[in-house]
Amino acid sequence: MSDHISIIEMGPRDGLQNEKTPVSVAARIAFVEALVAAGLTTVEVGAFVSPKAIPQMVGSDQVLRGVSHLKGEFHVLVPNEKGYDAARAAGAEVVSVFAAASEGFSRANINCSVAESIERFKPVLARAKADGVRVRGYISCVLGCPFDGEIKPKAVADLARTLWDLGCYEISLGDTIGVGTPHKAKQMLRAVAAEVPIASLAMHFHDTYGQALANLYAGMEEGVRVIDSAAGGLGGCPYAPGATGNVATEDVVYMLEGMGVRTGVDMEKLLAATNEVAGLLGRPPVSRVASALNAKKRRSS
Amino acid sequence: MSDHISIIEMGPRDGLQNEKTPVSVAARIAFVEALVAAGLTTVEVGAFVSPKAIPQMVGSDQVLRGVSHLKGEFHVLVPNEKGYDAARAAGAEVVSVFAAASEGFSRANINCSVAESIERFKPVLARAKADGVRVRGYISCVLGCPFDGEIKPKAVADLARTLWDLGCYEISLGDTIGVGTPHKAKQMLRAVAAEVPIASLAMHFHDTYGQALANLYAGMEEGVRVIDSAAGGLGGCPYAPGATGNVATEDVVYMLEGMGVRTGVDMEKLLAATNEVAGLLGRPPVSRVASALNAKKRRSS
Repeated sequence: MSDHISIIEMGPRDGLQNEKTPVSVAARIAFVEALVAAGLTTVEVGAFVSPKAIPQMVGSDQVLRGVSHLKGEFHVLVPNEKGYDAARAAGAEVVSVFAAASEGFSRANINCSVAESIERFKPVLARAKADGVRVRGYISCVLGCPFDGEIKPKAVADLARTLWDLGCYEISLGDTIGVGTPHKAKQMLRAVAAEVPIASLAMHFHDTYGQALANLYAGMEEGVRVIDSAAGGLGGCPYAPGATGNVATEDVVYMLEGMGVRTGVDMEKLLAATNEVAGLLGRPPVSRVASALNAKKRRSS
Repeated sequence: MSDHISIIEMGPRDGLQNEKTPVSVAARIAFVEALVAAGLTTVEVGAFVSPKAIPQMVGSDQVLRGVSHLKGEFHVLVPNEKGYDAARAAGAEVVSVFAAASEGFSRANINCSVAESIERFKPVLARAKADGVRVRGYISCVLGCPFDGEIKPKAVADLARTLWDLGCYEISLGDTIGVGTPHKAKQMLRAVAAEVPIASLAMHFHDTYGQALANLYAGMEEGVRVIDSAAGGLGGCPYAPGATGNVATEDVVYMLEGMGVRTGVDMEKLLAATNEVAGLLGRPPVSRVASALNAKKRRSS
């Protein structure tokens, strides 16, 4: 299991989008710069969504333009053609679309059925294909839904297949509320891998119930090689305010490096990036590794 | 992997012993009562150690006597014959002894070499055998030492063999500073299992770097069936104050139940026990599951 694992950094998008405190465009650009300097060269940097619904992502065009001088691959989320146009105007070369594995979440989150959500981003995928833009597909609630409860692996697999057939180069499987456990993660991944090449799957697991690393480890045993994570465990959980969100990049890197998997991430620089943002948000990072390293620093200083 | 897993609850001992704020004897008895009511029927309830070195454990005799009416198995830690005598006088039927897998930790923690520490508890094991008292053996720093760094699996295996040969019924393998990762945990467990029956091994993993559940999952894949954990993740880390300590029982139970392993633990009652102690300590529990469940409660109230 010592071959390569790719980390897709989610802090500036899935992280900050779910933080109450808005972070300025300049600070978000500085955050991405710090992440890239730490070795995280694939970063989702913003979302072209309704500023009313998600004010934290306002100025994503400026962020995307502001990081264009950096060596890296920068993704932005687009919910529809309007978002796609704006993303392209800001220079986007990789965009993400999203769908939910559960009808209840789709209704609550984007106010349409799963089938309708696919119709909505079909034109985006067609346009992207014509433009030579790569599209990453997110599926949320793959291991459970706050409204519908348990989600059948087959529902995830079918949707993954649809996204794949529509041209997504990678399908990121989101345990949006962090309720998964290792066996369920394996079962789900096996079902999806029967429909989509495993090399094109990513694990996007939240750490709400502390299960993310165990689930990632189980998924790596299944052969998945791409992990989404957020510096410092940014993001929180909108369905349980006060709980933790995205699995922390620090914790993932610690596990991978401990397993002999080279990540290319400089932990000290990553910690500095995390601490900088934590300062702006006014609270310490929830990452266990960041907490431990910060505690050690306090002790030795 | 759906067969039984035993949880040994560490909160009242390894948890509280490492908390700054002392908790009264009455509150510790109430804590054990609450844990047993939640289904955690094997609990380490105290330590017969120097009151000067570890004031948090003062009154362990009263705690042990105070829980004798409960249906459960109650362990106490004894460092030497003096501790053993006091434990027996208070009615102890299961005692724990401890040794370190590293010379540096042994020196720092108990001011003697590993070999000397074994000599020190040899009389305890002889007396226990004669008295029909069961002895559990802890080995600390099995996956790394704050002083010596990496620890060779063979060093752990040899020490485990020694404890086993001396009559311990179970060997609890402690990742005292939480630095282990899944592959290292597996390698260590394989080495130990070559010397001691795997059914007599326990995993005592701290969550300092967030790796504990992944390591426990990896260890379960190796066949280990006993897990030490502490309600709420009590304990902290003396080598990185501010970092987390014992893996949280809630997080372990969540993973096991999600994997179809019945633990017999009532999560609501466990959470109540955890919150009660957290109140006494004046800070919220570090357990991810406890945080998420408390957040959900706040939201729905």
